[in-house]
Amino acid sequence: MTGNCVGETERPELGATRRATAEDPESMDVALRSRAEALDATDPLRAFRDRFVIDDPDLVYLDGNSLGRLPKATVQRLSLLIRDEWGGELVRAWDHWLDEPARIGELIGLNLLGARPDETIVSDSTTVNLYKLAAAALDARPARTTIVAAADEFPTDRYVLEGLAESRGLTIRWLTGDAVEGLPPGELAAVIDESVALVVLSLVNYRSGSVADLPAVTARAHDAGALILWDLSHAVGATPIELEAGGADLAVGCTYKYLNGGPGAPAFLYVRQSLQPELRTPIQGWFGQRDQFAMGPRYDPRPGIRAWLAGTPGMLALAAVEEGVKLTAEAGIEAIRAKGMTLTEFAIELLDERLSPLGCTLGSPRDPARRGAQVSFRHPDARRLTAELIARGVVPDFREPDSIRFGLPPLTTRFADVAAGVDAMAELLA
Amino acid sequence: MTGNCVGETERPELGATRRATAEDPESMDVALRSRAEALDATDPLRAFRDRFVIDDPDLVYLDGNSLGRLPKATVQRLSLLIRDEWGGELVRAWDHWLDEPARIGELIGLNLLGARPDETIVSDSTTVNLYKLAAAALDARPARTTIVAAADEFPTDRYVLEGLAESRGLTIRWLTGDAVEGLPPGELAAVIDESVALVVLSLVNYRSGSVADLPAVTARAHDAGALILWDLSHAVGATPIELEAGGADLAVGCTYKYLNGGPGAPAFLYVRQSLQPELRTPIQGWFGQRDQFAMGPRYDPRPGIRAWLAGTPGMLALAAVEEGVKLTAEAGIEAIRAKGMTLTEFAIELLDERLSPLGCTLGSPRDPARRGAQVSFRHPDARRLTAELIARGVVPDFREPDSIRFGLPPLTTRFADVAAGVDAMAELLA
Repeated sequence: MTGNCVGETERPELGATRRATAEDPESMDVALRSRAEALDATDPLRAFRDRFVIDDPDLVYLDGNSLGRLPKATVQRLSLLIRDEWGGELVRAWDHWLDEPARIGELIGLNLLGARPDETIVSDSTTVNLYKLAAAALDARPARTTIVAAADEFPTDRYVLEGLAESRGLTIRWLTGDAVEGLPPGELAAVIDESVALVVLSLVNYRSGSVADLPAVTARAHDAGALILWDLSHAVGATPIELEAGGADLAVGCTYKYLNGGPGAPAFLYVRQSLQPELRTPIQGWFGQRDQFAMGPRYDPRPGIRAWLAGTPGMLALAAVEEGVKLTAEAGIEAIRAKGMTLTEFAIELLDERLSPLGCTLGSPRDPARRGAQVSFRHPDARRLTAELIARGVVPDFREPDSIRFGLPPLTTRFADVAAGVDAMAELLA
Repeated sequence: MTGNCVGETERPELGATRRATAEDPESMDVALRSRAEALDATDPLRAFRDRFVIDDPDLVYLDGNSLGRLPKATVQRLSLLIRDEWGGELVRAWDHWLDEPARIGELIGLNLLGARPDETIVSDSTTVNLYKLAAAALDARPARTTIVAAADEFPTDRYVLEGLAESRGLTIRWLTGDAVEGLPPGELAAVIDESVALVVLSLVNYRSGSVADLPAVTARAHDAGALILWDLSHAVGATPIELEAGGADLAVGCTYKYLNGGPGAPAFLYVRQSLQPELRTPIQGWFGQRDQFAMGPRYDPRPGIRAWLAGTPGMLALAAVEEGVKLTAEAGIEAIRAKGMTLTEFAIELLDERLSPLGCTLGSPRDPARRGAQVSFRHPDARRLTAELIARGVVPDFREPDSIRFGLPPLTTRFADVAAGVDAMAELLA
């Protein structure tokens, strides 16, 4: 199946086949396999898996939220870029390469972020983009003395903010939230005040997969006159995002997870159009210069989102990003979201049946609307278990202190992978 | 010929064959061709050209100082990295990828920069690295109020410094130098004083190719208690560099020019070991964190140069950098420098004979010791001439206001390319 799948997203019924029980392990394996097969057979996105390189069909890959799989189209595209463009066109290829960061940014912004034109670029790493935007936001609120962020935010976000706060003499107010459910609705409202310059938050938490309420949290930040910066790394390509409708100010996100852009692929950066005249990147590079090749004596930023480019963009990585984004757009984010919810529901059902009796607890929200395309299982031996799973060809990942993450990118994950992953965990724990 | 060529670097005698004159154009072409052929025949590095992809043998490529050619080894390496590592190993490849930025940095530092171990990494763009180092240097000299830089410095360097100066209320003192000869020996000494926190300078100027005196300029900066940051973008891989012996503090440089790392390849960054405890990156990312996967609550930088990593490194681009660096190291920087001097001498000889009578002047130093592996020709119609040359399959580049740059990377440039380039210019101007 190719073509846009929006409209074909009815979710297969869960639990329709006979349930196995822990008392009846023989029948369980058979029943489990047949349930997974039935779900895979009715999966409207199932054909997308064939669009990716799958060297080892027996590998149970549950870590696409760390590094997404390689699209077949990317192999072709990179071969052309390397041999024909770099090798053949040489420097002349810059005539068509120059605008790629903004063109591919636009593709992400319009298809996956609910952004308007000229609000998104692909450039640098998530860390560097977060630094650029957070520094600019703090510059724009010079009289305010506080940053608000989540205590269980992804580490690079926390470390960047810590550095900015230290160099400027600011305070960080850490939201404690809930390790499983994420930020309670009232917590931001309770801590925010007019000393806050900037709120930084992930839309989907990296450990639990909990989803924040973007419009509500954004509104609370704005009530206090603060700017808000969303980290979309674990959300983009897994769940619909509406930056414009939700009133978001700034965003960054990663392209090597659900967007399948490749190891260390460049990140994207979003600045709401109405804020663009007010904010200025701290890293003024020549790719942000209005008349770049005039090489004039003073920095004069380009209009729009291109002002946020810094150095020369890496073209190999950019081309890889585009192919992953195009596949995601082709499948349609609504269909992807629907499958992500079904995959994670299936995983939780299996946890309840098979892993809870063995000492595992759920590390993700039970409400599918509050959960990204990942499920975390908590167990005191999670680190050792993860290593043993990997040794058996089942690849989730471990996150401190006690979480095994099953990342379930809907374009490449089968229900059979979820079943095999849980089955392997149950065997190890039994 | 493979193997290290140091010791085989005797420079072919120039002018040994009969000189053509402008009065005798027919014989000139023949004579010019035979001189170039004789020089190519005795070039000890001539076999290295076969190690690169050359799709169009008639293309006269004189812009390897903007984008170096594609090594054949890189095609193979990237194919393995994309298909087998990303496609096959998936996230498990990070076990061996994690240390690549420091390992490949070390390869550059030890072979090409005269650095000690643990002083060089490959990370981010030249622009971002320059920002990180300049910001850290200014933080380390908080009582000082001035930055010194060259007025004809490469634009991204000037723009980065302008941004840093503006945000900190500092002044930039611009060295005027000489458009052709570069910085006169006394100019820095004349302007520097104890208000200066940081001096930023390119070792090889991007437009003229003039080479600065690294030990002497560094000593002048240190006399005033300032730190110095060298931009090695147009020097690395073209000329020997001795950062440790010259006393340099900080350096950045580009890998997509003479190191053939590919379009927008990541840059390198050097911090002298003795300075490492004193300086701190402004961009505190998770790749700079001591125990990265503990994901601890506070930033605790890794010891050594790895503290300067920020976000997740782009692995495709890093692998490409390594192959280019290995070729350069295999050829040997002394042999590369010797050929670079001979190539540029040949170009200047042809300028004097054939282009000076047609209104061209030399835009690079006449002393080969003061010149990188490029020659600039100045002409009032340089922009139009460059476009017409490119249309004829001769690819130099234009730099404002009036320079045509012939970039002559010694591993890939033939004397025949220089002759053909000058011949085409002479025809267009005649």
